[in-house]
Amino acid sequence: MDLRIIQELAEESDRKILLLVLDGAGGLAVEPGGPTELEAARTPNLDELAAASSCGLMDPVAPGIIPGSGPGHLGLFGYDPFRYLIGRGALSCAGVNFLMEPEDIGLRANFATVDESGAITDRRAGRIETSRCAELCEKLEAAVALEGLQVLVKPEKDYRAAVVLRGKELSAAVTDTDPQRAGVPPLKATPGDDSPEAARTAEAINELTRQALEVLADEGPANAIVLRGAARKPDLPPMQEVFKVNPVAIATYPMYKGLARLVGMEVVEGLEQTEEVFDALNKVIDDYTFFFCHIKEIDSRGEDGDFEAKVRLIEEVDALVARIPREAFGAIAVTADHSTPSTLRTHSWHPVPVLLWSPTCRADGVESFDERACAGGGLGRFRGVDLMPQLLAHAQRLKKYGA
Amino acid sequence: MDLRIIQELAEESDRKILLLVLDGAGGLAVEPGGPTELEAARTPNLDELAAASSCGLMDPVAPGIIPGSGPGHLGLFGYDPFRYLIGRGALSCAGVNFLMEPEDIGLRANFATVDESGAITDRRAGRIETSRCAELCEKLEAAVALEGLQVLVKPEKDYRAAVVLRGKELSAAVTDTDPQRAGVPPLKATPGDDSPEAARTAEAINELTRQALEVLADEGPANAIVLRGAARKPDLPPMQEVFKVNPVAIATYPMYKGLARLVGMEVVEGLEQTEEVFDALNKVIDDYTFFFCHIKEIDSRGEDGDFEAKVRLIEEVDALVARIPREAFGAIAVTADHSTPSTLRTHSWHPVPVLLWSPTCRADGVESFDERACAGGGLGRFRGVDLMPQLLAHAQRLKKYGA
Repeated sequence: MDLRIIQELAEESDRKILLLVLDGAGGLAVEPGGPTELEAARTPNLDELAAASSCGLMDPVAPGIIPGSGPGHLGLFGYDPFRYLIGRGALSCAGVNFLMEPEDIGLRANFATVDESGAITDRRAGRIETSRCAELCEKLEAAVALEGLQVLVKPEKDYRAAVVLRGKELSAAVTDTDPQRAGVPPLKATPGDDSPEAARTAEAINELTRQALEVLADEGPANAIVLRGAARKPDLPPMQEVFKVNPVAIATYPMYKGLARLVGMEVVEGLEQTEEVFDALNKVIDDYTFFFCHIKEIDSRGEDGDFEAKVRLIEEVDALVARIPREAFGAIAVTADHSTPSTLRTHSWHPVPVLLWSPTCRADGVESFDERACAGGGLGRFRGVDLMPQLLAHAQRLKKYGA
Repeated sequence: MDLRIIQELAEESDRKILLLVLDGAGGLAVEPGGPTELEAARTPNLDELAAASSCGLMDPVAPGIIPGSGPGHLGLFGYDPFRYLIGRGALSCAGVNFLMEPEDIGLRANFATVDESGAITDRRAGRIETSRCAELCEKLEAAVALEGLQVLVKPEKDYRAAVVLRGKELSAAVTDTDPQRAGVPPLKATPGDDSPEAARTAEAINELTRQALEVLADEGPANAIVLRGAARKPDLPPMQEVFKVNPVAIATYPMYKGLARLVGMEVVEGLEQTEEVFDALNKVIDDYTFFFCHIKEIDSRGEDGDFEAKVRLIEEVDALVARIPREAFGAIAVTADHSTPSTLRTHSWHPVPVLLWSPTCRADGVESFDERACAGGGLGRFRGVDLMPQLLAHAQRLKKYGA
């Protein structure tokens, strides 16, 4: 469905919406016939909410598609993840909460180690620490000089950084310098089309790579940078405009705050613990109409491959769910941006359970928030991009379509 | 979802995929509340597989749409049947295993009977036998002469044939000569647009129709031909390219082998009995990574309107399902290309049951492979075109989408 249709139907209202994302909560059984992580976890609060809700299974992007964090969240925010793409470089900038300007070109950078011949010996520079990465970013940003361009270098985590080229007449149509393997020198960036902008940008990236070698020459394992995923800021119409909500993100991890900013959300800063997400929700409840609460740690336990730890985390989050002031909301969805089965240790394509609570929902007899129970729920199976219209509808923020 | 997205995500792998199509297996109860054919059949092997699988209901094309064999299979093969069309003439060519060249125009032909006034008295020429049809096709192909064009005439079944015009500067934009009713003469083909190619093709078809009257003048009931569905070979990107699989079709009926060839599958030839399909699967298991096994007879019993015979056939196929070497596969789907309820004696729009087995699937508690049980399964309801991405994902042949 075209966003212009929703935009025409959406109305301002003081009925509030909560989107609670349990990152990577969907899972798999360890043994055939056994429980998934959500099925194994004791979750009285989520179960009680499910019993009062319509439930279902959701493909965050589409059936079979393994969602990256960007597409998975765009879908949940109501943006078709096949239509709206966030390039790697733009995601890196979002991840460090760097607000790109429309003409900026963002790139994902790795600090790397090169030997005397110029060949890469370690694409991760011995996995330097984030604090060391920050020092090197600062040094690089100060020392590099490209004619007519500003170069901004922001640390991500460990050896990762975001690089922004700021200036006129740049293009994202350039190839990577990161060869994605050791044993060869960084590649030369080449223009991806015939435009003078692409040629100019490729040249700038190559000159930046050259200067970085000089600046970092004595910096031990981190004596080079490789760049990839040149991208502009994605052109996402803000949620305020499309969905007529006043949205806020309540999250602990930079990437999710960055993604939220890309669709126009304000962000509650300074949160570190999962518990603080629920406290902050109560604190800012009067100030917004759309609340995106993001819980990261469940996904991390799945990526660790630790079934038991993921179960425990789910149970801890369940205890915090009791703090949601349900009566303040017109509609609440609890779901995930993708599955992260601990048996697979990574994002997977399996659909995720979803519950949609509202005074206007049809309770469907599902009494447990897990994959098997929700498969029998009244929402059936649907795509992530279809969640937002249902939330808006249940919060009675959508007009009738057509006469 | 655009195939280009899947093409970017799909990866080569040695994990194998089996798509077992029980043609027309979906059905209806004879009496309200009674069992469908699949529910009436005793199917211990399919049920055991279902119990270890994720199950659901699938609309091969879209809800409410009665799938022809072409669109039904294209959907199963992962091609949007609304986007990729196989014209009637091209389907006829596929059905007789005639490999069209890109500039060919394919047409579906009926041998017909005309009276002295030229009016059609029987659009099916007294339903002549296939062997007689083959003789007449050969005679026609040898006798007809069109300037600058080659005319190929291939027998289908009974009174049906495929005609191909081969030459330069032809067009598929021409109207049918088949009036689809008796009592009138064959129609004149007319150009469907203003191009010289359409005019030339219409002229060629009319001249062919005229010459056929001469050639067939003494051939009893089959003394004329009517033509319809002018079409080029559909432009389907091969499965190897899009899905990165090495596919083979194991089928007994020409049309399904032809459809498989249109998407780039190799074909196991010489099979006649259903049993041989399962034997061939075991024989070629090491040579491919995607196996399309097609079982035709269940559909035929449905078209006969014989509920009991369809039940018996399903039970016979179930016994053969035990021969599937499950451990050789990364993912297995068992489903149908459409329903053929014996009460309706024809293809129907009812969604078909589907099971998806994989070491990475979520068993969902469904313990029987039939319409009612699968309706409660973890796959929910989805479209045929969404099956292939799920098979690829479960066989771990898809990369993550987006960062």
